[in-house]
Amino acid sequence: MADLMSNDMFLAFSKYATIVVLKMMFMAPLTGYFRITRKGAQNWHFVQAFSNSEDRKKMLQTNPDVERVRRCHQNDLENIISFVVIGLLYAFTGPDLSTALLHFQVFVGSRFIHTVSYLLALPQPSRGLSWVVGIITTFSMAYRVLTTALFL
Amino acid sequence: MADLMSNDMFLAFSKYATIVVLKMMFMAPLTGYFRITRKGAQNWHFVQAFSNSEDRKKMLQTNPDVERVRRCHQNDLENIISFVVIGLLYAFTGPDLSTALLHFQVFVGSRFIHTVSYLLALPQPSRGLSWVVGIITTFSMAYRVLTTALFL
Amino acid sequence: MADLMSNDMFLAFSKYATIVVLKMMFMAPLTGYFRITRKGAQNWHFVQAFSNSEDRKKMLQTNPDVERVRRCHQNDLENIISFVVIGLLYAFTGPDLSTALLHFQVFVGSRFIHTVSYLLALPQPSRGLSWVVGIITTFSMAYRVLTTALFL
Repeated sequence: MADLMSNDMFLAFSKYATIVVLKMMFMAPLTGYFRITRKGAQNWHFVQAFSNSEDRKKMLQTNPDVERVRRCHQNDLENIISFVVIGLLYAFTGPDLSTALLHFQVFVGSRFIHTVSYLLALPQPSRGLSWVVGIITTFSMAYRVLTTALFL
Repeated sequence: MADLMSNDMFLAFSKYATIVVLKMMFMAPLTGYFRITRKGAQNWHFVQAFSNSEDRKKMLQTNPDVERVRRCHQNDLENIISFVVIGLLYAFTGPDLSTALLHFQVFVGSRFIHTVSYLLALPQPSRGLSWVVGIITTFSMAYRVLTTALFL
Repeated sequence: MADLMSNDMFLAFSKYATIVVLKMMFMAPLTGYFRITRKGAQNWHFVQAFSNSEDRKKMLQTNPDVERVRRCHQNDLENIISFVVIGLLYAFTGPDLSTALLHFQVFVGSRFIHTVSYLLALPQPSRGLSWVVGIITTFSMAYRVLTTALFL
């Protein structure tokens, strides 16, 4: 197994996959933070933490900021899983290291831009574009996996 | 690493895992499409895209068609992740290639049938059955992984 | 490929990853069970299964028990995916087997405690603590992957 970790391609994939998964994990405490500061909970545990009845009422409404973080997390889940699965298989198809690095870096970059433009509610198409760039990167890797797996 | 990709089992897994992940990725633009055509949004960005106040009001209600695509996507996430993780480990336990192919093909087939019967709202038990078939396939692979990992 | 499965580290990862994914898969039928017994559905299919109009009305409300199972499932998805991805990469960085086993066992244990304390609505901080323990375990593995992938 040590052989695999001395392989540059596998190291490159490990690095970018870990970075982007850590970014995704960061969304969970962020949702909690927004729930407490913006007072929009789905969660009775959170509601009970406030004794003030005015605060409680607010907690039961869905708050647009909280919903935005939650949707951003969900979008991360959907897209990062696809990247990790297809990226790992792609790393084994033996692409050029520079081409693979380009794919990994563009994807990870697009997800960071996506998160920032989602959370700060930047004007479109910043969010839409970064999402599409991530999708295209994943498709490009999937294309190579399929051509390798289907015809070789 | 090139060795792994010259392995038939790994190629077979790569092919079916990529196909089923691509199918899952297709659900995201589909949700967007339904949100715009059926006018049921969770999302202020979408709402603001409509100037007509009648359209806006519709956008704020949850639309049953939109909710169906969204739930179908969520169901994909839950089931396809389990398949990818357990299927990859299963491929390394050294099953017969034909047995493994059967597992992969039945699972991928069941997910396509599940999506079609969810989206077209086909009468039950088409959706329920295809879901159960996918689960059973995954359990069958998990059983082999566990017997290999626990006793060998 | 058989070589990999004769590797103790890979076997250990396979075992714990499969167990925790199976636990996650168990949440789906549980949500269905709660939907039927507690009568809180998101889903017209479920609603139509009841002829009684009183039951139907209940089905359309969101039920706190059902919502709790659903959120627990979502929390599983988010955390178990991160563990599986980072844990697999971690297994290839060549840690001591005993250290790796400790990480895997603590994570899997924390997720079981999390599920039980979520579903039985045990008083906090049981749920919060088990969630944090899982996160710390994953971070610890991610740290090793990053130091291996960045500097070696």
